[in-house]
Amino acid sequence: MEVDEKVKERLRSEKAYDLIMSAEEAAAMIKDGMTLGVSGFTASGYPKAVPHALAERGKKGEKFKVNVYSGASLGPEIDTEMTEAGIMGMRMPYMTDSTFRAAVNKGECDYIDMHLSHSTQYINYGALPKVEIAIVEALALNEDGSIVPTTSVGNTPAIVRQADKVIIELNTLQPMGLEGMHDCIVLPNPPHRKPIDITKPNDRIGVPYIECGWDKICGIVITDIQDGLRPLGSVSEDSQKIADHIIDFLDGEVRAGRLDDTLLPIQSGVGSVANAVLYGLLESEFHDLTCYTEVVQDSMLELIKAGKVTCASTTAITPSPEMKAKFDEECDLYKGKLIFRPEDISNNPGIIRRLGVISMNTALECDIYGNVNSTHVNGSSMMNGIGGSGDFARNAAISIFSTVSVAKGGAISSIVPFCSHIDHTEHDVQVIVTEQGYADLRGLTPKQRAVRIIENCAHPDYKDMLKDYFDRACATSKLQTPHLLDEAFSWHIRAMKTGSMKVGE
Amino acid sequence: MEVDEKVKERLRSEKAYDLIMSAEEAAAMIKDGMTLGVSGFTASGYPKAVPHALAERGKKGEKFKVNVYSGASLGPEIDTEMTEAGIMGMRMPYMTDSTFRAAVNKGECDYIDMHLSHSTQYINYGALPKVEIAIVEALALNEDGSIVPTTSVGNTPAIVRQADKVIIELNTLQPMGLEGMHDCIVLPNPPHRKPIDITKPNDRIGVPYIECGWDKICGIVITDIQDGLRPLGSVSEDSQKIADHIIDFLDGEVRAGRLDDTLLPIQSGVGSVANAVLYGLLESEFHDLTCYTEVVQDSMLELIKAGKVTCASTTAITPSPEMKAKFDEECDLYKGKLIFRPEDISNNPGIIRRLGVISMNTALECDIYGNVNSTHVNGSSMMNGIGGSGDFARNAAISIFSTVSVAKGGAISSIVPFCSHIDHTEHDVQVIVTEQGYADLRGLTPKQRAVRIIENCAHPDYKDMLKDYFDRACATSKLQTPHLLDEAFSWHIRAMKTGSMKVGE
Repeated sequence: MEVDEKVKERLRSEKAYDLIMSAEEAAAMIKDGMTLGVSGFTASGYPKAVPHALAERGKKGEKFKVNVYSGASLGPEIDTEMTEAGIMGMRMPYMTDSTFRAAVNKGECDYIDMHLSHSTQYINYGALPKVEIAIVEALALNEDGSIVPTTSVGNTPAIVRQADKVIIELNTLQPMGLEGMHDCIVLPNPPHRKPIDITKPNDRIGVPYIECGWDKICGIVITDIQDGLRPLGSVSEDSQKIADHIIDFLDGEVRAGRLDDTLLPIQSGVGSVANAVLYGLLESEFHDLTCYTEVVQDSMLELIKAGKVTCASTTAITPSPEMKAKFDEECDLYKGKLIFRPEDISNNPGIIRRLGVISMNTALECDIYGNVNSTHVNGSSMMNGIGGSGDFARNAAISIFSTVSVAKGGAISSIVPFCSHIDHTEHDVQVIVTEQGYADLRGLTPKQRAVRIIENCAHPDYKDMLKDYFDRACATSKLQTPHLLDEAFSWHIRAMKTGSMKVGE
Repeated sequence: MEVDEKVKERLRSEKAYDLIMSAEEAAAMIKDGMTLGVSGFTASGYPKAVPHALAERGKKGEKFKVNVYSGASLGPEIDTEMTEAGIMGMRMPYMTDSTFRAAVNKGECDYIDMHLSHSTQYINYGALPKVEIAIVEALALNEDGSIVPTTSVGNTPAIVRQADKVIIELNTLQPMGLEGMHDCIVLPNPPHRKPIDITKPNDRIGVPYIECGWDKICGIVITDIQDGLRPLGSVSEDSQKIADHIIDFLDGEVRAGRLDDTLLPIQSGVGSVANAVLYGLLESEFHDLTCYTEVVQDSMLELIKAGKVTCASTTAITPSPEMKAKFDEECDLYKGKLIFRPEDISNNPGIIRRLGVISMNTALECDIYGNVNSTHVNGSSMMNGIGGSGDFARNAAISIFSTVSVAKGGAISSIVPFCSHIDHTEHDVQVIVTEQGYADLRGLTPKQRAVRIIENCAHPDYKDMLKDYFDRACATSKLQTPHLLDEAFSWHIRAMKTGSMKVGE
């Protein structure tokens, strides 16, 4: 078979050449009821051509369903198209796609939400259906059939190890400069595990490729499709205020002598607030910062370029399309400073606890006692999965959750009497931040926490209502965590009926 | 000063002799508003004489309050007597004492509930008031002023390090055979932490004493007071059934090839069910078992004696008084097989995840989607703290929660539509067990979990009511986690009004 030079550089054994096929031929190997494992973590480094071809089979009327395991959410070729084609069966461990979300909330697809660090174990321990075919985007295939990943590692090493067969999407658009940035390993199952020797975010413990071998590879599809990245929204005024409060809190920790001005490794969720905080660090007096996180976006790449962050550990990068174009050109700038790990390492509870990460994640709602809902609207409707927030928050040196204090133009308060779903308990939430201010909850009893959250974080429109609930609950009893169970969800119920948590609207 | 031979063996420097004083003299050093750190984890290895003398000051009418940090719950000389004396201010991190519980639920004392592995960090990181005086029960004081602990390690190493002054209670009743069983260390704060080199429950990483020094020791009180241990209740029929179901589940894991017949290191909470499970293991075909836990009771000591368990790591032993008497005589039997660690090591997320612990903890109530309440009755009234259950459940290879399906003679169902407080989220609960059966929730969506929990675990008296709630919630919506928020707490509200969750009682 004739193979052009650009492909030859990436297919490092002639054994590969005979395996080259079209996306449709590769997709044809996938049968009804199969469990697929795919590369990818966010819309980065996931296979695109084969899932698209698979979805086309469904759209043409073929009836079949497959399970899909991945690192986290994925781009539209999988979560959107496969859902639209009606071929998505069970999906784990994370999702943000609006099409798939709607299907889950109509009961059309099964979604299993879990801590991302658990997801790798679920694959390795064998308690879930086994991965039959893996579909993996690759930068290159080495001579021995090992895989060089692209813009994410996620669960790919565990998925490839468990799979019977592996389909490769060799993406010639991904820059060769990525090679060497990955640090891959599959942990043995207990009782054979050893300590993981990471004491700084950029310590290497594995190899820059995923072990595989030619016996498993059953097809290679050559592609040049860009990751399904999205432009970042501009930083809103509220996000900027939240960022300012977080930096103010961190400043206070430095002044109190609990942190020095290099802080501790930072973990930051994704989105507007996260970007605002990180851009805030760019302007701050903190220096020689490090990062131990699961996703790196534009702001972190800027921090590395500016020399403000000396090293960042992640499992994926999800820059804006503009930033990705720059990244592809400037890859070498990040060598030795940016490291991609499997998600059971990036999200490993032991390493997060050891390094003493400062975790910053987003809450959907938070209650007066400090419990956080990250996943369900009104306790029932899945918004996004929990992702890695629990891995980081539970094990962080300082665990921060932020949310804008009101949603839907003020009709919904993000601070409520009782969270309608709880993903992070009062035990895991140390600091709550809204655009109104921050509440440092460390060392406070539940009643003391309630006073501080209402005072510092609630929107003025809801402060009196929250105080009223809390005061009446305390008047009824002096119990550890006073609640009025018959009113606990009344705000949510009112909002479902009238569209607003405010009384009489 | 004249010192008898039994004491001389334990006070290994003459510097100690001049520090000997009465409990009253030692207690006199404690002033209003002070923060005390005490040794002890459960009613084991805690100071008794000085807290009693301190409580006496309060009972005689002196007005003062102190904060008390410990490893976990403590014996009656502290949690009961100091509360009765009105001198208990803020207390952390765990409690089970009924007197203290009542005071907390009347708002008379401040109790801060937290994960036990967090408690050590809270002390080390400096976000809580600093320990001024430590009171530590000791088996012996070494020549350099280091402390040999007794029947628990708990948070004592961190407490002693932070304290300005240390009062020692040298307990001559504790058997010298304990010496050498402790493995003490204080982890440095981030970013200076190294991997903890434990790959088997009995690996040693520290020293058999707690670093202290004569400059800190401000008083030594000689005591011979037994730990405030309690007889164990007999195994109820329901506990036996729960134990049988758990062993059945573990058998299934072995048959499925996910475990071999040495299982994985076991963590077990305390109480009747825990004892029944462990006694069940004694009769089982499993062999060469190991244990990585926080408290060891009679059954585990029996398992070690019988050679069924080859080694057990813990932070305390809490045997019955009868078993303690035997233990004191037979200490040597346990050498090299029983190891006492600080609780940030016994409960360390990284080690628990690495070893792949099988965690078995108790739920107060559990909801149809698999969330667990461990701490609060009707969402408000503190029962016990969360203790180490979160450290183990979140990081276990298999996380099991058990509860009897009904309480109060059947008036209360332990399986409810919505937990009135959530300590362990759906993400952390893999198997739920009641006397009715077990529900393996791994790999299930919320709706699938509900069906299985109701079918396998609910009491027959409540099965139809739970099905009715779930079916009507599903009929309203096909959402990911269907709830009827206006009825979610109706069972609790009814029970508060009528004493029963049943309708029309």
